[in-house]
Parts: sequence; C-alpha cells; structure tokens
Amino acid sequence: METETKDTTIKTLTPDLLQKINAYWRAANYLSVGQIYLYDNPLLKEPLKLEHVKPLVVGHWGTTPGQNFIYVHLNRIIKKYNLDLFYIAGPGHGGPAIVGNVYLEGTWSEVYPNVTQDEAGLKKLFKQFSFPGGISSHVAPTTPGSIHEGGELGYSLSHAFGAAFDNPDLIVACVVGDGEAETGPLATSWQSNKLLNPITDGAVLPILHLNGYKISNPTVLARIEDDELEHFFKGCGWKPYFVEGDDPLTMHELMASTLEKVIKDIQGIQKNARSTNDNTRPRWPMIILKSPKGWTGPKKVDGLQIEGTFRSHQVPILVDADHPDHVQLLESWMKSYKPEELFDKNGTLNADLAELAPIGNRRMGSNLHTNGGILLKDLHMPNFHDHAVSVPSPGAVTGKDTTVLGEFLRDVAKLNKDEHNFRVFGPDETLSNMLGSIFETTNRQWEARIEEYDEFLAPSGEVIDSMLSEHQCEGFLEGYLLTGRHGLFNCYEAFIRIVDSMFSQHAKWLKVTLELPWRRKIASLNYLLASHVWQQDHNGFTHQDPGFLGHVISKKADVVRVYLPPDANCLLSVFDHCLRSRHYVNVVVAGKHALPQWLTMDEAVIHCTEGIGIWQWASNDQGSEPDVVMACCGDTPTLETLAAVSILREHLPELKVRVVNVVDLMKLQSSSEHPHGLNDQDYDSIFTKDKHIIFNFHGYPWLVHRLTYRRTNRELHVRGYKEEGTITTPFDLRVQNDIDRFHLVIDVIDRLPHLGSKGDYLKQQLKDKLIEHKHYVSEHGKDLPEILNWKWNNK
Amino acid sequence: METETKDTTIKTLTPDLLQKINAYWRAANYLSVGQIYLYDNPLLKEPLKLEHVKPLVVGHWGTTPGQNFIYVHLNRIIKKYNLDLFYIAGPGHGGPAIVGNVYLEGTWSEVYPNVTQDEAGLKKLFKQFSFPGGISSHVAPTTPGSIHEGGELGYSLSHAFGAAFDNPDLIVACVVGDGEAETGPLATSWQSNKLLNPITDGAVLPILHLNGYKISNPTVLARIEDDELEHFFKGCGWKPYFVEGDDPLTMHELMASTLEKVIKDIQGIQKNARSTNDNTRPRWPMIILKSPKGWTGPKKVDGLQIEGTFRSHQVPILVDADHPDHVQLLESWMKSYKPEELFDKNGTLNADLAELAPIGNRRMGSNLHTNGGILLKDLHMPNFHDHAVSVPSPGAVTGKDTTVLGEFLRDVAKLNKDEHNFRVFGPDETLSNMLGSIFETTNRQWEARIEEYDEFLAPSGEVIDSMLSEHQCEGFLEGYLLTGRHGLFNCYEAFIRIVDSMFSQHAKWLKVTLELPWRRKIASLNYLLASHVWQQDHNGFTHQDPGFLGHVISKKADVVRVYLPPDANCLLSVFDHCLRSRHYVNVVVAGKHALPQWLTMDEAVIHCTEGIGIWQWASNDQGSEPDVVMACCGDTPTLETLAAVSILREHLPELKVRVVNVVDLMKLQSSSEHPHGLNDQDYDSIFTKDKHIIFNFHGYPWLVHRLTYRRTNRELHVRGYKEEGTITTPFDLRVQNDIDRFHLVIDVIDRLPHLGSKGDYLKQQLKDKLIEHKHYVSEHGKDLPEILNWKWNNK
Repeated sequence: METETKDTTIKTLTPDLLQKINAYWRAANYLSVGQIYLYDNPLLKEPLKLEHVKPLVVGHWGTTPGQNFIYVHLNRIIKKYNLDLFYIAGPGHGGPAIVGNVYLEGTWSEVYPNVTQDEAGLKKLFKQFSFPGGISSHVAPTTPGSIHEGGELGYSLSHAFGAAFDNPDLIVACVVGDGEAETGPLATSWQSNKLLNPITDGAVLPILHLNGYKISNPTVLARIEDDELEHFFKGCGWKPYFVEGDDPLTMHELMASTLEKVIKDIQGIQKNARSTNDNTRPRWPMIILKSPKGWTGPKKVDGLQIEGTFRSHQVPILVDADHPDHVQLLESWMKSYKPEELFDKNGTLNADLAELAPIGNRRMGSNLHTNGGILLKDLHMPNFHDHAVSVPSPGAVTGKDTTVLGEFLRDVAKLNKDEHNFRVFGPDETLSNMLGSIFETTNRQWEARIEEYDEFLAPSGEVIDSMLSEHQCEGFLEGYLLTGRHGLFNCYEAFIRIVDSMFSQHAKWLKVTLELPWRRKIASLNYLLASHVWQQDHNGFTHQDPGFLGHVISKKADVVRVYLPPDANCLLSVFDHCLRSRHYVNVVVAGKHALPQWLTMDEAVIHCTEGIGIWQWASNDQGSEPDVVMACCGDTPTLETLAAVSILREHLPELKVRVVNVVDLMKLQSSSEHPHGLNDQDYDSIFTKDKHIIFNFHGYPWLVHRLTYRRTNRELHVRGYKEEGTITTPFDLRVQNDIDRFHLVIDVIDRLPHLGSKGDYLKQQLKDKLIEHKHYVSEHGKDLPEILNWKWNNK
Repeated sequence: METETKDTTIKTLTPDLLQKINAYWRAANYLSVGQIYLYDNPLLKEPLKLEHVKPLVVGHWGTTPGQNFIYVHLNRIIKKYNLDLFYIAGPGHGGPAIVGNVYLEGTWSEVYPNVTQDEAGLKKLFKQFSFPGGISSHVAPTTPGSIHEGGELGYSLSHAFGAAFDNPDLIVACVVGDGEAETGPLATSWQSNKLLNPITDGAVLPILHLNGYKISNPTVLARIEDDELEHFFKGCGWKPYFVEGDDPLTMHELMASTLEKVIKDIQGIQKNARSTNDNTRPRWPMIILKSPKGWTGPKKVDGLQIEGTFRSHQVPILVDADHPDHVQLLESWMKSYKPEELFDKNGTLNADLAELAPIGNRRMGSNLHTNGGILLKDLHMPNFHDHAVSVPSPGAVTGKDTTVLGEFLRDVAKLNKDEHNFRVFGPDETLSNMLGSIFETTNRQWEARIEEYDEFLAPSGEVIDSMLSEHQCEGFLEGYLLTGRHGLFNCYEAFIRIVDSMFSQHAKWLKVTLELPWRRKIASLNYLLASHVWQQDHNGFTHQDPGFLGHVISKKADVVRVYLPPDANCLLSVFDHCLRSRHYVNVVVAGKHALPQWLTMDEAVIHCTEGIGIWQWASNDQGSEPDVVMACCGDTPTLETLAAVSILREHLPELKVRVVNVVDLMKLQSSSEHPHGLNDQDYDSIFTKDKHIIFNFHGYPWLVHRLTYRRTNRELHVRGYKEEGTITTPFDLRVQNDIDRFHLVIDVIDRLPHLGSKGDYLKQQLKDKLIEHKHYVSEHGKDLPEILNWKWNNK
C-alpha cells in the first residue's frame, strides 16, 4: 500500500497481513451472502441465474459484515497471544457470519462432515441456511462455538459474564447490537463489571456494534452525541475505545491496533490484580465499533439507499421471479468480493488465508467452553441425610424448609470450593429466602465499594445476589451452566415471571441440543422459588403469582421438571436430585416460614423417588376403596389438607378418607406425555376411577385439570390460588382462596350428600368458624389461636 | 436560625418556612411510623404499651422518610408555581409515606370519609395499614394520587413518560429507587428522554433516591464513584443535580433551592421550545437525592447500626412479646418527631402546617391525571365497515389482515389527532407487523438526531416504536391509559412474553380498582399480537411462543378478553370493539401474511358479536347431528380446518361435518367462570354432547382442554403448537405440529372406525401426500403448488 510507505506511524498490521485479513473478511462476507441467497452455483463458476437462487430468500444481512469483521480480528489476536477466547453474537440473527466463519476455520466440517471444505460442501453450506430441514437463520445450538442463540434479544452480556465467572484464563468477546442495547436486560447488564473479580474470574470484552439501525428505526445509541456515548460507558464503569469508519483497510488497522490495546489492558489488569492481590474494581476496556449497516453490500437498489441504512437489515436485494434484473445485481455484489482470489478451483479457502485462523480448540467454533458438557464435572455432594430434620411423628415438629436447605447448600458450596464450579444466584433475595447459612462458608461477590455495615460482601464469593435484576440472575446462571458448571437461581415465586421469556429460550436451547449428538449435556437449570404465594408478610397482592409452573410445563416434556416438596426432608431429597441431574429445567417451590414437618428422611426419600404417594398414616381407607380422596401438592395446601382430614376423621369417623400427596407435579400427566407421568393404571389405583378427589393445589387450579384431562376419574375438584387476598394473615389468605381446612371439609360434604344431616351440621359449624375467623382476624390482625396451635394428631 | 443570619447567601427558604417544612416532614414521618406500628394510642397520649402495637408489624421504613422529604418539597413548589404535578413512587413499598402525605393534605379523608382528620381518624389510618381487611403496605390502587403500584420494581419511569406524553402542562415527578434502578426495565427507561417532545408533551422529573441499600445489599449506583454517577446520567442525556446529606435543615434548603433550579430548567426548556418551535432534544433536569436509608429512624438497636444501612429496609425495631424493651425504643423514636407540636389535641394537623399543602386538584393525591377515568373521552371512531374487505364468497379472495387493520388505525389516529389521546406503541415492529398505513397520517416520535434516510421519524407523532424494548412499550402504554387516554401495543407474539410479569401487575391493578368506586374506569389495554407463531419467515424456533394467551386467562375473568379473528373483517370488528371497551386487557392475535378471507363484513360483525359460531356454509350437517365437529380458532388453524373439511366432503361425502369457528376464546369457558362463557346448553348445541370434536387451535392444545374441562362432551381432540419446527415453509411448520389439513383428516378417520376401508384408503393417500410434501419442501424450499394454490370450493 502506498499510504503505508508514506505513513511514518508504526502500524499493527504489515501490508501483507492487512491484505490477508481483508481477503479473509471478503471470504466471510462472500460466504454470508451465499448462505442467504444461493441454492446452487456456489462459486459463481457459471453466470448466475434465477434458478440458482433460493425460492424463499430469508436472513439478516445488516449485522453480518460487521460481525465478520470482528471475527477475523479476534482470530488474529487469539493466534498472536494464544488466547482462550470465544465469541457471543448478541445480534445473533447474523447467523451467516458465525456459520461462515466457523466453516472457514474448519470447525463446521469437523462437526458436520458432510459439509466439506470444497465446492460440494459450499453448496451444502449455502443451501442448508434458512432452508427447510437445514439450519436456523440465527446463531443457534447447531452453530459450533455458540452458547447464545440469536432471536430474542438482550441477554448476551449476562451470558458472557456468566461464562467468565470462575474461568480466570478465559476472555469472552461479546458483540452487543445497538438495537439489543435498548432492551432492559442489556441496559442493566453493562453494570455487571461490579460483580467480576479480576483475580478469580475471566474477562468480558464487550464490543458494541453501532451500525445505527434496527429493523426500520435508527438506534438510540447511534443518535446521541459522541460525548454522551462516552459519558454513558464511563458511567457504567468501562474504558471505551472507538473504532469508527467505513473504509475497510483503514478500519482493519484501527481495529487491530485497538485490539492490541484492549488485550494489553485486560492482561495488565489481571496481572496486576493477581500478582498484588489487588481487588480494586478495574475499568475494563470495551470497544465501540461504528460501521455501516450492511457494510460492503449493495449501495443502492431501485434508487433506494441500502448500505448504511435500515434497509439492509434483512435481505437487501429481493431476487425473485418478479425482479429478474436483480439476479445481475446479486451476482455483481458477490463478485465484488473476488471469490476467485479467495478459493481455489475446488472451492477450498486458499491456504495462506486459512492459516489466519487459530488452530484446534483455540478456534472460536471449537472453544471447549462453548460445549460446556465436555468440561462438566460432577459436583461433590454432601450426604443430605446429614441435614435431615428429625420427625418423631408426622407434624410433631415444625421447621423452616429453605433454612434447612440453606445448610445443605452451604455444604455443597464448601465441598466444591476448590473446583470453582458451583454458584448461587439471586436478586438480593438469598437472605430473604432464608438461605443465609451459605454465608458461613462463602460471600456475595462484589467489586464495587464495600463499607462498614455491609454483610457477607467480598471481592470473591460463590453467591452472586447483589444486583436486583432477575434478568441478570437468569442470564448469569445460563452462561455459567452452558460453559459446564452448576448452580441455582433463588427467587421470589411471583417475580420469576420477569424471566418467563428467558426461561423459554433456554428450554428451547436444551430441546434442540438434545437432538445434536455432538452437543454434550449440561447441568440442569435449578430454580428455587421461595417466598411463595402463600407466604407473604411484608408484601401482598403484587407478590402473588404461582403461574410459572404452568408456563414451564408448556415446554417440551423432555427438559422440564416441577417439584413441590411438602416439607424440609422432601426438599432436601428433591434438591439433591436436581443438583445431580443433567439438561433439565428443575423448578422447586419451597416455603421459608415454620410449618409442620411430616416425613422422616427415609420416608421422604421414598416419597420423592415415587414423586406421588398415598400417605397411609393420614388415611383411614386401608384395605378398601375410599369415600373421598384428599389430594395435596405444595407445603401450604398439604398442611390444610391434613387439617381438613383431621376434622373429617374426628367428626365423620365412618368416612373413609385417602390422603395423596404429590411432590413431582408431572406425575399427574399421562406417561405418554411426560416421562415422569403415571400410567393410567397407577393413576387410577391412587386416585380411584370414580371417587371424588378434593385436590388442594399450590398454584392455579386449572393447572391440575390441564395435567389430568385425559384421566378416567372426572370427579376432580381442585382448589388453588384464584387471585384473591392481599396483605393479611397466612391463614386468611388461604381462606380467601378457599384452600383452607374449613372450605375443604365443606367441599367434601357438598359432594357426599349421603352424609345427610351429620354433614349439614358439620358444614354449619365450619361456616360459623369461618365467620369467627374473619371477625377475629380483622379485629386482632392475627389468626385464631386454634389455627396457630393446630397439630396433627395421629390417633 | 443563627446560621441563617451569618450566612450571606440568599436562601430559598425563609427561617420560618424552613421550620414549617421540617415540621411537616416530621408529621409525615410520624404518621409513617404510626402506620407501620400502631394499633392504638395514635397520639401517644398515654405511655406506649405492647398492646398498642400491631400483633404483626410489617411494612418498609427504609425508603419512607426520603419519600416524605420529597413529597413536602414538591408540595412547596407546586403551590409556589401552581404546577400540575403528580408523584410516582418507584420504591412503592414505601406505602406509609404516600398514604401519610395524602392524609396530611386532606385527600385521604375526602376519598375515605371514615378516616377523619382527628384522633379517631388517625387510629383508623394507622390500624388499616398492612392489616387484614385494610390497605396494602405498598402504594396501591387504594392510594389516591397513584398510577403506579409498589411491589414489582422497574416500571416507574416508563409509567411516568407514558403519563407525560400529550400532557404538555403536566410534570410527572418520578422517584426512582436505587434498588429499582438495577432492574433491566428501569435501566433502559433512562433513555426515554429521546422520545419526549418538549412542545407537545409534558415533563418527567426523575428523582433518583440514592439511599444506598436494597433488602440486604448495597446498591450499585451508591457504590460507584461520583464522577461515574455523573457520567452515567449525562450519558443518558440528563442534567443531574445532586442533593446530598443527612442534616435535615441543610437538606431542606438544598432540596428547595435545587427544585427552584429544576423547575426553572423545565419551564425554560418548554418556553423556548414552544415559542420558537425548537424541537432540539433538551437535556432535561433530574435530581440525585443521597440521603440515609431509614433517615431519622433509630440509629442503633441491640448494638446494630440501623439508620443508613440495609437493616432499616423493613421494620427497624422488632416490637413484640419477645422484645418488650423495644416498646420504649419505639416510643422514643416516635416522640422524637414531637407530635405535640404538629397535631392539636384533637389529632388534627396544625393549620399553619396544613396550609403548606396545595389545595384542590393541585394536591398530588387529588391530581386528576392519577384517576384517569375522570379525564377519559371516547375516541372518535371511523366506521370500520368502510375498511371491509370485499368477500364475494368464502375464500374467494386473500388479504393481509393486519394491513387492513393498519388502514383502520390510520383513520383512528387521524380522527383523534386534535384530541391528542390515542397512541400506538411497539418495539420497532409497527412496519414489520404491517401497520404501515398509519404513517400516512402520522409519524414515529423521536427527539434524537434524524438523518437523511430515516423513514417516518419526526419530533412529534402518534406512534412510539423507536426503542427496542417491550418493557418500555408496555410501561408507556400503561402510563398513557392510566392517565385517561387510549392506545395499543403491537408486538411479535413470542416476545410479548417479555412483559408477562408487567401484564400481571396491570391486570391486578384493574381488578383492584374495579372494587374501588371512586376509581373511574380507564380505556382497555389492547395488545395486537402479530407476526405470530404460524407466520415466520426470517425467524424460527425462538420466535414461536403462543403461550401468552394461557398466561392472560389466569388473571381475573372480569378484566381479560382474548380474540383470535379468522380474517380481516373479523379483525376489524374485534378491534373496533376493543378500542371502545373499558377496563379490560384485550389480547388480539392476527396474522400479517396473505390468507384467504372468509366472511363479508356483515357476517363478520354477527360472528364476532356472537364470538363463536357454526359456519353453515362450510358444514353439511344441516338439520341433523353431525358425525364430527371440526372446530378452529385462529387464522391459520381455520385455513387448515377448512382445507381438511373440503377433503372430507370430497372423499367422504356421506360424512356429516360441522364447522365451528371461535373468535372469542373465552366463549369456551363456562358462563360461571367468565362473563363471555357459553352456558352448557349453548355449548352442547354447538359442539354436541358426544360427537368427536377435532379442534384446531392457534396456541398450545392444553389451553382448550383447560377452558373446557367442565363441559359434557369429552371427545375433544385438540391440535395446536407443540414446540416443533423452526425456519421452514409455512405449511411445513403446520405439518410438523400436526395442525395441517392432512393430519386433521387422519384424526377424523382414526376416530371414526365405521368409515372402514374407505377411511383407510383415504388415510393412506394422505400419508403418501405428507411424504411427498416432505420431499418436495426439502428439495425445493417451498410448498407444493397444490397447497399454495388451494382454494375453498363451496360446492
């Protein structure tokens, strides 16, 4: 380059390397356009015709050349410094970029040997993209090197930080789209640098890709002033570097030299922190890449500006039978990359370009962290029996379920401390959810200022719960799991719904990866939903939503599990199972207030292993069909059902009552629909074919109907949460939703007319009791002593 | 004050006013503590005893004194400048602050006359707080002056901007908690100033309440450096003012003088913009208030620091039978406010303090915008018949449903332009959802830089869709509706789930306000879910989630409505109804691609009014019971059901087929559960009591089972989305989920064994057809011509 010789500043790229990098980028751009458009004629060896173009051209061009640009530069820096670095594509609809690069570096053909690195392979590569039976238009589980699916936007940085935790030698390069940057989850995730320890964690390198447009609008960050943009990122605690322009060769040098600085910064921060044990929060570097949307694509089509505008977001040229002249445009565009200079006659990338990519597992598509199951080690598990609550007889003692679990989790954290592969996430609720025992062995990780009265904060620790963002907790945990580690997310039950949509995307990821043999199974995503709908104190109506369960089970049965342990020993047994399990989403609902304990640990293990069972000790139908089945699921419904049963057995001793408790919700569904489901015979043997079932449920009643609509017994009457009640006493909330003992007994009487006047008499007594309750509570602000003092009496 | 006379700078507050403001603040603080703790003895006329304290003390003290501080200062500035200004409490768990202030200003006693402004009223005020049968501990619908419930955090600023749009004389003071500020939705909502027009909209004054702690953690924004904090807000486009300290008198002067500057800034910006028509984006002022958490509360309790730490978040002193000595502590705390100087013997606020509050509707609790139904005007509605698609016979023409709706919405926007009370919100999807016609009459409002190639952007316009944040769209629309205007949120179906939790909170708000006669009904929240699960092109598996419907109907039947119009004329009829309706959440699912049109406008109106109906023109069971009921709900399922019926009628003409279409999903539920529900007789007359129903549904199949589980006819077989398929052809996606015509016919044959060999033969033909389809699609990337060209033939 002439300019090189005139320029006296020292360049990062030699003229030769500059040209090679540009050529590699052209190759990636060529492959990207080919994927979007071409059905055949991949090397354009013959003049392009309409029949070479896919019948339905779909995909996203706009972000793609910029991501190709980033990828080739990351390749260079990885190779130069032998970095352990992988790539997260926030604007993941730019699938062609990542797929193309993973192909160029050779990973794609290793994972999918039918797509060879020659003309035949190129044809397959192009055809499969966004084609029926092929691959998604987004970065997806099918894309080697990805832990982050394109599609729903906003979670890239949270995923990146999740991956970087406890991976001190890893750098996660996270490309953030400027559209994505407008989502709430992404906006708050810039603050994650307050949670990343420079000694024990890796680094996250955000690259804000400011190409200026979303689908049809400009982006906010592209239309504020430069000083505002810089203020913003400094305010978020970053050291921003700008890489801005549209001339490819100038931009290559700028990007290369900036990456040199950035890697120097990262390595300097880490070296300093690690050699001096200095935990001061660093100002980590980030890059703001301003490049035209649809860079190097068609400038104008039919008189409309395409490059550098929103019009390049998806397909910049419509090539179909209605636009035959556009075939020529497409061909010119593709030929502008000079494929003949890039690929040999066989369609293989020229060797001098191929050698620009890193090799082996340093290739971003082959980075082991991105197929975390490979790195996954079993947790060292404490014996949960050691944490058993002693239960001399059912209901004889009370216990706080999550407090007991907290002690178990403390020991899990302790046993795996050296492995650095277990973390607890939460939105400032770990203490509120009564898991505080974990702080006997570890702390909450926090790199911002620590002051005198803070508790359990330290620069490094296994708990991350110092940001009030459910989105961040979910994103961190997903990133942590996807890179081969273990963990859980503890959350108020109502507010887990903030991440409904994130859960869906993760469940979809799990479903698709199950179909990919090369993707190894990862640890399950465990939710502990405490502070649940029935256990309000400082909060009310806004904190009541047990609907996550219904949301979860709309996903594929292969990957979702739901548990509602009735007491602490069952919770221990269930959680031990969840932490050992793989590739599920486990939802566990548990209370934090003192409630009666029902089962010994041995009984709990049996009960949880079965997932559902008749509680013989509470039933009096031994050896015969019951008159009524009293079923319950969830800690509070179980308490009320047992209290109802004690009333029934006292006042109507001749009535044969069977008590059924459900821990594993999916047992209710048919075995043909869920692997945990009971077959009809077993279901009928528990619930009978025709006796009335009064089912007391933790969540919305219809969920039980939805799970059981194929069952024979239609005499199913479900009580559950029906959006009534706000701040009140625990028992009154149950009364307002009809799940209390009195309503349950009335339910039985209403359905068994043969009880006659004896039933009517009891019913009237209970109605009077409900009135007494109401008066007492509104006068005294607490429950009747007989409710507070009630105990199961196993006569 | 001595310091006053020595100080030569001019103070905003005279010594007398300073003392009065401080006294008013003490009164508010006193009332706050009283609400949290006291059951009796409200003026502490006798020594405090345990029995004067509530048996269960719950509430949040931490944020409360700071909010009391803000409230009294806003009172002053409102009164001084006669401002139309109301208050949003982001940290809305500080209910005692807002309730106390609304009581002090007199609004509470006007709305709830039993709570008088005397000792008896004080006792009621205190007792009702967080007490069974009383009011919530959070700011709630019961709180006059509120449009924003405390509880779930993160939406305050979006609500504030929604309220400010099209209210040019309004200032919305929005207190943002520093915990709340960590949520994603709040983090992105700082950017809303790029969407607020200084001429046609009002102002939002954010007051970041930096009291340093959440439940048990410090907050991020309180633990970064001051220069970072300033950078951050400048980067977000604000002009930040700091008010920092803990000495009350100093802080009063500082807050007062800062509010003077802030109001001057706001009025200056507006005056300049309005007098010169200058739309340049202003740097609006905001306040960062750094004050101790639990300010003026107990400093230490049992040796632990309380004031200024997380320990003051909820109840700073535990007063119960186990802590009898704490009664004295509480009494000292309350007496530190010197109630005897604030209230007269009757318990009425002294007149010289009472006059600090604004009067009439200038009181923040009485601000009319906060009871938006009062201000609500009916929309001027165009005649939707004018937009009718001409349908000569069923299926004779195709149409793009949302395109037709877009023309209707354009006319709604046009007719209400002068009223400034109708807005369309969306996350950059209004064009993608094919509502582009609206831009013939208006623009997308955008205050950031506008460049050459932008489309439909202008400083002022009725569409707000230039931020890619579903949270913002939902929050803006809620704020807009709650202040008495109309609007809709258009969104991709899958991504509406991002706001699952926000929808829940709004539905809960609607439910509670229905129970409050003084709260006037507001316009319905209308969702248009386009780009739905069956209509993917550039996207795949990640964009498929029809589960919002199931989420919505878990809320109270009084407030939720769900519509799935099968064609454009039905969509028009439904949407006309939704825009006229009040106090509902209406969910409308509609497609954007060309599909057959079935009903004339007159037929559509009848069909949508009924909500469900037998399509006689497609059925051949006239005058008798059918052999099978082919039911459908949703545009794509309707198409496939009709195609299946045409196969049945051609190949099995002797079979009597009834076609039922459902527009109003809630018709399926029992009339005892939903006001729209069919009674059993009507349901049975449509669906029969025992014939097989093959129900083709838009969403998850179980939703139909959940709605119908109480119905007599159990022979219900539902097809719907089952999480299969990604990018493929439209028809193939249906095949992969078994909702296509061929599977439907096979379903019929499988359930009617009496069809014998004729059925078997047809079944085999269809299976062959499915194989042919599969091969064709994977080879050609498009659907079989016979599928693309299929038309209903009404023989």
